[in-house]
Amino acid sequence: MSLKAAFYQGNRTVSVGECRPVEPGPGQVQIRVSHCGICGTDLHIWHGAMDQRVAMPAVLGHEMSGEIAAVGPNVEGWADGDPVTVMPLDFGKNPPAGHSHVADFMKFMGIDSPGAFQSYWTVDASTLFRLPEGCSLEHGALIEPLAVACHDVRLAEIQPGEHVVVIGGGPIGMLVAMVAQHAGGKVVVSEVNPYRVSKAAELGLEAINPLETDLKQLILDRTDGQGADCVFEVSGSKAGATVMTDLLRIRGRVCLVAVYAFKPEVDLFRFFWRELRLVGARVYEAEDYDEAIRIAASGALPLDKLVTHVTDLNGLQGGFETMDSGGEAMKILVDVRA
Amino acid sequence: MSLKAAFYQGNRTVSVGECRPVEPGPGQVQIRVSHCGICGTDLHIWHGAMDQRVAMPAVLGHEMSGEIAAVGPNVEGWADGDPVTVMPLDFGKNPPAGHSHVADFMKFMGIDSPGAFQSYWTVDASTLFRLPEGCSLEHGALIEPLAVACHDVRLAEIQPGEHVVVIGGGPIGMLVAMVAQHAGGKVVVSEVNPYRVSKAAELGLEAINPLETDLKQLILDRTDGQGADCVFEVSGSKAGATVMTDLLRIRGRVCLVAVYAFKPEVDLFRFFWRELRLVGARVYEAEDYDEAIRIAASGALPLDKLVTHVTDLNGLQGGFETMDSGGEAMKILVDVRA
Repeated sequence: MSLKAAFYQGNRTVSVGECRPVEPGPGQVQIRVSHCGICGTDLHIWHGAMDQRVAMPAVLGHEMSGEIAAVGPNVEGWADGDPVTVMPLDFGKNPPAGHSHVADFMKFMGIDSPGAFQSYWTVDASTLFRLPEGCSLEHGALIEPLAVACHDVRLAEIQPGEHVVVIGGGPIGMLVAMVAQHAGGKVVVSEVNPYRVSKAAELGLEAINPLETDLKQLILDRTDGQGADCVFEVSGSKAGATVMTDLLRIRGRVCLVAVYAFKPEVDLFRFFWRELRLVGARVYEAEDYDEAIRIAASGALPLDKLVTHVTDLNGLQGGFETMDSGGEAMKILVDVRA
Repeated sequence: MSLKAAFYQGNRTVSVGECRPVEPGPGQVQIRVSHCGICGTDLHIWHGAMDQRVAMPAVLGHEMSGEIAAVGPNVEGWADGDPVTVMPLDFGKNPPAGHSHVADFMKFMGIDSPGAFQSYWTVDASTLFRLPEGCSLEHGALIEPLAVACHDVRLAEIQPGEHVVVIGGGPIGMLVAMVAQHAGGKVVVSEVNPYRVSKAAELGLEAINPLETDLKQLILDRTDGQGADCVFEVSGSKAGATVMTDLLRIRGRVCLVAVYAFKPEVDLFRFFWRELRLVGARVYEAEDYDEAIRIAASGALPLDKLVTHVTDLNGLQGGFETMDSGGEAMKILVDVRA
């Protein structure tokens, strides 16, 4: 098997070339990459939107799994063959503390430095999380987005029996919905793409198309006219910013997960009048990784059904094109060993 | 002394007429009104903005103090002469529970039913709060807006040493700033009206004019570049909705107190990126009244300096005109006995 890496070259182009493994230095390990998922942020980069930030040719990829191939000096507790995933946050010389996961100094591995779309990836041992029995390498590549969902649901403080709406049924929205439902929430996903609406059913989720169903009336009917307890806004749309407040009961919460590319109009009067709350949620902290791994290993969620495509590094370019076309794709994984 | 009442007649007009005292029914008391403040909401009504809601001729006024004049049947614990203020929330037949202070069924006394700009006011005994030793009748008329501030500071969870910015230095903004400072916050008031900026100093508050001082730079300089812990948005302005997110540190909080008459653009990206939080805060709960009375009676706040005018019922029309002109007024009290 030859050693390969995929390089983003700008101009919506990824090309496959030779991987040059990096010897692990002190505190580092080298990972033989197994699977790596394509994230919406990777697509954003492929679109050229972050060309100022990435150093081309760039090896992207941060939703990954693999096995340890080599251990550098001063690394304890890890051995060749250990199955792992990586929390791709680089705190530099700042130890993670407080809320450093959203600190200005935080760098993102696979964006600000090389990522996992390559045969061997060398990282700090401090970023490793062990994949336990019951968590396959394929599922290991889903831990990163699943940890995002665990973080969002934790910050939203979802309680059993609460009525929850997830606006936007892409991979993150679906995972948020699955984790919120796993936490005991009564979840409805709102999504305009018919493929995604039908995909939700496969994932054990209720989804509606707000162009066909009056979402607000549905929620009012189910809550004795009160409104939802929590809305996760994952769409980043003008409509999402409007409906998030419309749906909520008195003292209801918005968990803001979407990356807004503009400043939408927001009904601040309703925040005041109903004493609504909003909490922004970004990436994850170590406890969210722990929880994501626990959930994945438990088999409680149908994660297999989230993966619509598995390709190899040569198929990465096509994977981006599939995602870009808005076609029938949810999570696309690259089997880097193939 | 004749018995008087001020009647809002529509068309920016208040006229003084005869007060017809109402005999207290079961569970009610009749109060001999002492002082009643003019609230921003009263001004809003005077402007005609709520003519659909108020039944004219309307007796307004809900920031009041007085002494019990008569006690109805089945009222215990109250006697003639007791100094009191009223929490002007009418829960109807619904007992206050949960967050009924912002429930849809809640009616506001002095808006939805007659208020305290009259010699005698008859109310349910359940709305009464006793004014203790150390709390004058004049200060008693400030308990209602002070309770708003106590509610806001409680929901914002201000901790000693936190950096706090209050956007908007009207009566509520000043009271929020005073209570937040009393709770140990390091408070700056941002206000464009020069009179109000100088008034803040009299109240023991630091205030800046954001048209003259770079507020964001000031806060960054004082917080080692981190930003404020909490911003109270009390201005209801487009600028306020922008600056509220600009000023905050990672995981900082907005407490939304203002009544927005439009839907402003809000930087939801920054809520996501810094994991900011927002909490809407409206009126008060009983514990906020208790706290407001405790603070007023302690003498810790220079409440006297908040009162810029004391007039009689014949002066109420002029009081509205003074407030409307944006002139040199902070809190205007009506001495109903005068």
